[in-house]
Order: sequence, then C-alpha cells, then structure tokens
Amino acid sequence: MTDMQHSGPFEALTAEALPARLGGVAALRERAGSDISRWNVREVGDGNLNLVFIVKGDRGSVVVKQALPYFRLAGESWPLSLRRTFFEYQALMRQEKRAPGTVPAVFHFDERQAFIVMEHLEGYVTLRKALIAGQQLPRIAEDIGPFMARTLFRGSDLYMAAHERKADLALFAGNADLCNITENLVFSDPYFVAPHNRHTAPQLDCLAASLRADSKLKAETQRLKQSFVTKAETLVHGDLHTGSIMVTAGSTKVIDPEFAFYGPMAFDVGTLIGDFWMSLFSQRGYEQGGSRADMRRYLLAVVANIWASFCNEFSRLWHEERSGVLFHRSLFEDQRDAQGADEALDQTLRSIWEEALGFAGITMHRRILGLAHNADFELIEDRDLRAQCEERTLRFGRDLVLNRTRIQSVDQANTLAEEFDRS
Amino acid sequence: MTDMQHSGPFEALTAEALPARLGGVAALRERAGSDISRWNVREVGDGNLNLVFIVKGDRGSVVVKQALPYFRLAGESWPLSLRRTFFEYQALMRQEKRAPGTVPAVFHFDERQAFIVMEHLEGYVTLRKALIAGQQLPRIAEDIGPFMARTLFRGSDLYMAAHERKADLALFAGNADLCNITENLVFSDPYFVAPHNRHTAPQLDCLAASLRADSKLKAETQRLKQSFVTKAETLVHGDLHTGSIMVTAGSTKVIDPEFAFYGPMAFDVGTLIGDFWMSLFSQRGYEQGGSRADMRRYLLAVVANIWASFCNEFSRLWHEERSGVLFHRSLFEDQRDAQGADEALDQTLRSIWEEALGFAGITMHRRILGLAHNADFELIEDRDLRAQCEERTLRFGRDLVLNRTRIQSVDQANTLAEEFDRS
Repeated sequence: MTDMQHSGPFEALTAEALPARLGGVAALRERAGSDISRWNVREVGDGNLNLVFIVKGDRGSVVVKQALPYFRLAGESWPLSLRRTFFEYQALMRQEKRAPGTVPAVFHFDERQAFIVMEHLEGYVTLRKALIAGQQLPRIAEDIGPFMARTLFRGSDLYMAAHERKADLALFAGNADLCNITENLVFSDPYFVAPHNRHTAPQLDCLAASLRADSKLKAETQRLKQSFVTKAETLVHGDLHTGSIMVTAGSTKVIDPEFAFYGPMAFDVGTLIGDFWMSLFSQRGYEQGGSRADMRRYLLAVVANIWASFCNEFSRLWHEERSGVLFHRSLFEDQRDAQGADEALDQTLRSIWEEALGFAGITMHRRILGLAHNADFELIEDRDLRAQCEERTLRFGRDLVLNRTRIQSVDQANTLAEEFDRS
Repeated sequence: MTDMQHSGPFEALTAEALPARLGGVAALRERAGSDISRWNVREVGDGNLNLVFIVKGDRGSVVVKQALPYFRLAGESWPLSLRRTFFEYQALMRQEKRAPGTVPAVFHFDERQAFIVMEHLEGYVTLRKALIAGQQLPRIAEDIGPFMARTLFRGSDLYMAAHERKADLALFAGNADLCNITENLVFSDPYFVAPHNRHTAPQLDCLAASLRADSKLKAETQRLKQSFVTKAETLVHGDLHTGSIMVTAGSTKVIDPEFAFYGPMAFDVGTLIGDFWMSLFSQRGYEQGGSRADMRRYLLAVVANIWASFCNEFSRLWHEERSGVLFHRSLFEDQRDAQGADEALDQTLRSIWEEALGFAGITMHRRILGLAHNADFELIEDRDLRAQCEERTLRFGRDLVLNRTRIQSVDQANTLAEEFDRS
C-alpha cells in the first residue's frame, strides 16, 4: 500500500474528510470495509492532545488517533511535537511484546500525518467512568499489577541487554515535549501560583497557599521530580491513570502511552495508585443515591491487590528473567547465594514502593491544584462537598510525599487513606 | 582542509607512518611545522585502549590520540567501538565550555580514523606518578573541586534546558561500549571469580573470598551499579582518577574523557576521592627512603579540600546559575523562600556525598581485585607489604560501601581512613 494520498504536510483530520483522505489505507479498508462511502466516522477524543475517530464500516470498526501540533488544554500557544505519535506507536509495540494482550492492537502508523490506526475497543469504557458510576470491576488488580510488572521489568536493565536498553533510552529521549508537560504541570506548577493552575475556590484557597508555602514539601516534590527527570530505569507508560485504562467486566486494556520515556519504575505505580486513592476520596461526593461505603472498601482492596499482584509478578520475573546487567546471577545464584538475590529483590520493591507513594502524593496535588483535573472530583456538583473531598486528598498527598519512607506497607497506607477520608 | 589522504577504512597509526599519513592535516602542520620530514614521533600511550603519539616538529609539538578497535588490556578478543573517540571529542568540547582551561585544547578530530589532535601538555606528568614519587602538588584541590562542580552542575538538569539535556543524553547513550567496560570491570567482576580478575596472591586470597561471599556488600554494590546505569544526572567524565589528571606545580589538566556519559554526579567525585585514598594507603609501601607521614597528611588535606572546593563552587552555581527544570527558582527564591532552596542544596550535596563514598569504596575493590590495577600499589616491590596496604584499602572500601549513609563529613571519612591505614 502506498500512502501517496496523505504524504503532504501535516493536516488535521476531520470526521468529514477522513474517508477521502484515508480511504486508501489498506489497514482501514481491511477492517472497516472497502466501501468507504459507507464509513461512519465520529470524533470521540477528550480533546486535550489528540483527535480520536471511530471509523465504522461494513466489516467492522477501528480507531484512528491523530496528534495535534499543540496542547489543546493549554491553548494553541503551547506547541507540541507531532512526533509523540511515533513514540506512542513505539511504546505500544513494546508493551504488546512485554505484556501481550494488554494494549489495543495496532494496524497502521503514519508518521508524517501523525496518526495510528488501532483496534476499536468496542463495549469498553474508561475505568474512571466506571468508578465514578460506582461500578466494581473484578479484574482490575489482577490485570494491571502484572501489566506494570511486565512492562517495567522487561524494559529495564534487569532484563534487557545493556546496548539495546541504551539505544532505546536514546530513542525515547526524543519525546522531550511530553516529558516537559509532566515536568511543568505535575511537578512544578501545583506548588506555586502558575498561570495554568486552577482549584475549587474560594474553599481551597487557604490550603493551596499553605501547601505552596511548605518548604519541606516543595523540596521533596523537587527530589521526586529529579527522579522523574534523571532516573532512566525503564520505559514507563508515563500517564497511567484510570482514564488510560479501558475496561469491560472481563477485560482490561491500557491505552495512550504517548508520554512514554525512560523514567523511574515507581512513576507508573505511584500515579496509578494515587488515582485509585483519588477515586476513593471522591466517593463521598456521590452518596446522594446511597452509601458508597462498599465502593470505598472495593477501592482499598484494588490498591492492595494491585500492589500485591505487581510484587508477585515482579518477583517471578526477578527469579526467572533477570538477564540484564543489574544484580546479575553471577554474583548471587551462581555463588549459591540465592538469599542475597532475594534480599536485593525485597530492597528493590521497597524502594519502588517508597518512591511510588511520593508520586501518588504529587499526582493528587496536581489534579486538584494544577491545570488538568480529573472527572472524579469535577463531576461532584456541590462545590463545598467537592472541596471537602479535595481537601482530604491534598492533605493525604502531602503526608505521602513527606512520610513515604515511614509507610511500611500498602495496608498501612490504606489505613492512612481511610483516616484522612473520615477526617 | 580535506582529509582525502586518510579517508579510507580505519588503520592504526604507527610512529613511522604518522608523518606520511597525517602530513596533510592543517592542524598538525600549523602547530608542529609544515616540514614533515623533521617531525619526530613517539608513541607514549599506556596501551590499554589507545595509541598516543607526541609529534614534535620545527614549530612545536602536539599529541595525536587514536583509538584501537579492541580493549588491549583484556586482549584483542574484546572489541571496542572506535566511536568512543567521537565521544571523547564531544566531552572535551563540553568540558572546555563548562570549565574553561581545564582540559587540553583540541585542534582536529578525524571521525573515521578515530583520532584527535590536541595540545601536548609539555612538562606535565600524571598526578599519579607525582603522588607515588611523594610530590605534593599545591593546586590540586582548588583546581579539581571546581572542575567537577562546573562540569557536573552545568551538564545537568539544574542548569541545561530540558530539551538540550535530553538530546545530549541520547547522543552519549551511544557510548555503550565504554559504559559496558565499567559495568563489568568495576561493578561486577571484582565481586566474583571472573576470568579477568587478578590480585596479590596468596596474601589476599582469604579476604577476596570473604568479600565475594558478603551478601550485603554485593547487594549494595549492585545498588550503586544501578545508580551508575540508570541515574542520568549529568555528563560525567566517567574515568576520573589520578592517572587522568596531568599536573605541573602551577597547572592541572584533566584528560581522557572517553568514558563520558550521562550518569550520577557522585561517580566522578567518588572515584576520584577513592583514588586519593588509595594513594594514601599505598604510601607505607614507599617508606624505604624515609617516612611518608607528611605525604599522608597532605593527601588527607587534598581529599578534604577537594570536597570543600567542590561544595563551594557547586553552591555558588546553585545560587547563580540554577536555570534548569530542577529546584526551579519559581518555587523557592521567587516565593521569598531562599531558605528552602538552601536546604535543598544541602540535601543535594549530602546525597552526592553518600553516593560518592559508595563509588569510592567500589573503585578501591576493583583496582585491587579486578583487571585494571593502579601503579600506586603495583609499584610496591615487597609483595607482603603491598598486600598489607591493599588489605587495609579493601576493608576501608567495604566500610564505605556499607556505611556510607552514616559517614557524615569528609573529616569523619578521613579519620576512618587513618584508622584503617594504621590497623
């Protein structure tokens, strides 16, 4: 197949123009049907960064995701490299290889027009939407824990050949535009009065000011930022939250890895767990229809089980696939020192855990004080009630950042979350 | 100038062939003289990795350093990319920019033939040679502390623009062959019975075996290796020891940055300080001509002053040039929270210090138990005496790796070194 029909300079797709422009793409014709006059195209993106089209035809449906050359949420004045689609494509390839079946299938990638044709996850909703609706998905922890363990372990120097890992690091270093978003919006802006910030005002004014005056908190967030920026441990998803997870009762898929880069293992773990805790803290905003106590118990169990299933799978990989340059078997098992390797594993998990708590705390702050909020709080209509939920979250987040080395277990962290939630 | 005369496939230079092969290189003619028949060429390399020629002519002398496609010290069966000369060249450019006057001037770089024409440091000797001879160079600490502070700070996310830093990280990720040497020879081989290892036997047999059976020590060295491999903080020299420093009484130059890559700041600091402590522990091997007590005091003072001058300059840069994405002024000084920035500086220096102690300990182990030893111990003729010096060093190294978080100051570390040296 030739892509002659869209090899010109970048042009954003529209639902109307899509059939004419992409009608020649074999991957689309095969899956949607070759009679393009019968294609039905809908744009369904949330609109922060990309266009997302569902193309339905005689034979079936696919998704076309196209990047926009600017950061829509922050206004067109914030330009963003289209090359992030290349990195999303590369990340999807690696995730599928490292954790088969966990991401949408990719059918076609067009670098110049910055779009990917991929599997349409029909019947799936975002996990966030399900959680806000009070739905308890049964497989989340058992699917997501191993997804994180496999992608994070197998993208690291615990597993990959050193040369290959360094070449991949170099490749993804090109995704600087998207790292830059996180560096600013997640790790800095929430902690001072930055132009893009917003929060539930005036209810949170005082707490926001007090967090922004908290020297210790700021220093710790900057140490965590330092880790984000410099600790090139593995290919992280980079934006793993309940909105990047699509679910049905029986299936879980992780989407949108365009923020992927070589960063700290704890980043994905922490931002995801932090997002579940935010879901927990938001539940009191939805009790008009009845108590969400059961939902809260469910969410605490999900957090505990995600961490447990992550540790289980990470430990299995540590024992069975530790083929990289770090903690090499020649120093441990080959010297009849399997216990030394086990202790090193415990220490590795412990250090991922501590740092993950820090990232969890920061993600809470940024979703409430920064630019990009999440629907869990935003959809709570009573602003006083919303602010109450947000306040507890902010305080818990501060505690996580400052006391992360003293929180020894996921149960202890969950107990703390419950205490803040009842406060 | 065209390089037609040497644009063929790579060919190692010889002293005899050099004038004919490089006679057309303008940079050489300008500095050595255009009458190539009067060029006097000597090969003076230590022969581990490279050829080093001094070319003297009517007008002056220059150095030609050429890479060999294998790691000579380990035998021709260990191939090494010639591209390391490219990285050495790139590193020299950056070091000169970040710490002007501290490295030899570069006159010409030939990528295909993998050589650099650079300043001949006439009258300089290696610092190692001077220290073995018992010479006390007066300017070392005041020159090297700021060299490290400037190169490490200005190559990091504390200073550089994020995009530029990431692009540079990607570039130097290509220097994987040389990282691989360090990953193996420094961080792994010393800690098990690896093929290239050697040590003073039988005197050190027991201690070597006991260190290699020390689970805790091995786990900690692997955590430090993890930092070396994944903590891409700044462009480090990567092989900073007293043999990479050329001195006269009034001048100090740092050479041989071919191991340069983005790694932890503490690596250069630790390996260098570790090398000074090794010089300290070796002094008792040279007391036939009189006590070296004064030399020992000098070396302890050098270590203390290097760390102090590093901290001073790093602090100055922190206050005056902190323009990168980390610990940004918008969070501290701009919020009238200068104290917050100062506390973060203290914590940053503290964390460099702790990790540097770990790298210092490992460099001691690798120089005594691994492949590449250093002359400080090797030139002690009495093998029992040498082994005694080495044994104290190994034990001190273990202590540094295991107790690095408990050693609060350079004075405390020096006191500990003295205790081990007297043991």
